[in-house]
Amino acid sequence: MEYPSKILEEAILQLTKLPSVGRKTALRFALHLLKQNPDSVADFAKSIISLKMDIRYCKTCHNISDEEVCSICTNANRDESFLCVVEDIKDVLAIENTQQFKGRYHVLGGLISPIDGVGPNNLNIDSLIERIRENNQIKEVIFGLSANMEGDTTSFFIAKKLEEFNLAFSSLSRGISIGGELEYADEVTLGRSISQRIPYQI
Amino acid sequence: MEYPSKILEEAILQLTKLPSVGRKTALRFALHLLKQNPDSVADFAKSIISLKMDIRYCKTCHNISDEEVCSICTNANRDESFLCVVEDIKDVLAIENTQQFKGRYHVLGGLISPIDGVGPNNLNIDSLIERIRENNQIKEVIFGLSANMEGDTTSFFIAKKLEEFNLAFSSLSRGISIGGELEYADEVTLGRSISQRIPYQI
Repeated sequence: MEYPSKILEEAILQLTKLPSVGRKTALRFALHLLKQNPDSVADFAKSIISLKMDIRYCKTCHNISDEEVCSICTNANRDESFLCVVEDIKDVLAIENTQQFKGRYHVLGGLISPIDGVGPNNLNIDSLIERIRENNQIKEVIFGLSANMEGDTTSFFIAKKLEEFNLAFSSLSRGISIGGELEYADEVTLGRSISQRIPYQI
Repeated sequence: MEYPSKILEEAILQLTKLPSVGRKTALRFALHLLKQNPDSVADFAKSIISLKMDIRYCKTCHNISDEEVCSICTNANRDESFLCVVEDIKDVLAIENTQQFKGRYHVLGGLISPIDGVGPNNLNIDSLIERIRENNQIKEVIFGLSANMEGDTTSFFIAKKLEEFNLAFSSLSRGISIGGELEYADEVTLGRSISQRIPYQI
């Protein structure tokens, strides 16, 4: 499609860089922005620049933070003995949202994936080892990683690296989703959930 | 959901202002932008500000333009005798995309809709009348408006206003979509397409 304006075309090109935004959606976004008043468009653009320029990463857990150390790491009410290792900031938000975990986090910034060129050195693994070495209150490391090849590789690598410390390791339980029907569960999950069945509590 | 950073929260709030973007999508957009390098995020924000600040509207047809008069209005190869009246810039793009129309456009900037508080004075109708008064090469006005109450009201209002000029009026044909199956066409469309049937050409 040919656009009547180079400026519009450039804006559409930039908007299509957002994940899962194609040219049609980008055009809708652009025309929507065009209809707003100049101040709110300026605020919009400013908040995006600020997002990139002003945001910091917690120097302890690498989570997003406005301060040097994030609010989860400074919160004295959280149990320091549990450390949940996650891939991404999104995972911290997802686990926080469950309100089931009161420990602390460590954000790796990715998973080991040779096919994507991501090795252990590209992740926050050294700082994790350092953190555990310095803080002997940590008793259990929980792998809150995806249940795929990359997640398993990363868990295994980290567990090996942390062998010297006297730690308990655990990972998220895997099985049938709550509310999920058995016939729609995939075979691997179903097979695993039989072999790793849990005691039935009355 | 509580976010660990006010900056992130503000960016998400701004991104949710885009049409059909909720908090989850906004978070995905924000985390995606965070992963980009600072320059490309700056370019992204700059193009959005430029979109609002630098873009102009053609003073003849009110289409988006980088110049005072848009490329369609200045194109001498286009037939000045046909003037297609459309609601929006999107409609110009859609009709241009068909490559079936070689006339010029007039963008109203909306449709008459008392329920939304849009009256004839909020639209570019006066400039349309002025344009037709000044340009006696225009022979036919084509209503390229939506096939709903607002579109019909707007067509009728404009046709009445242009009665004094010696013009032909036409509107987009309505009927079964090409490739559409009869049983899935709605009754009103099907009814209209029978009563307004067209001669079959061998």
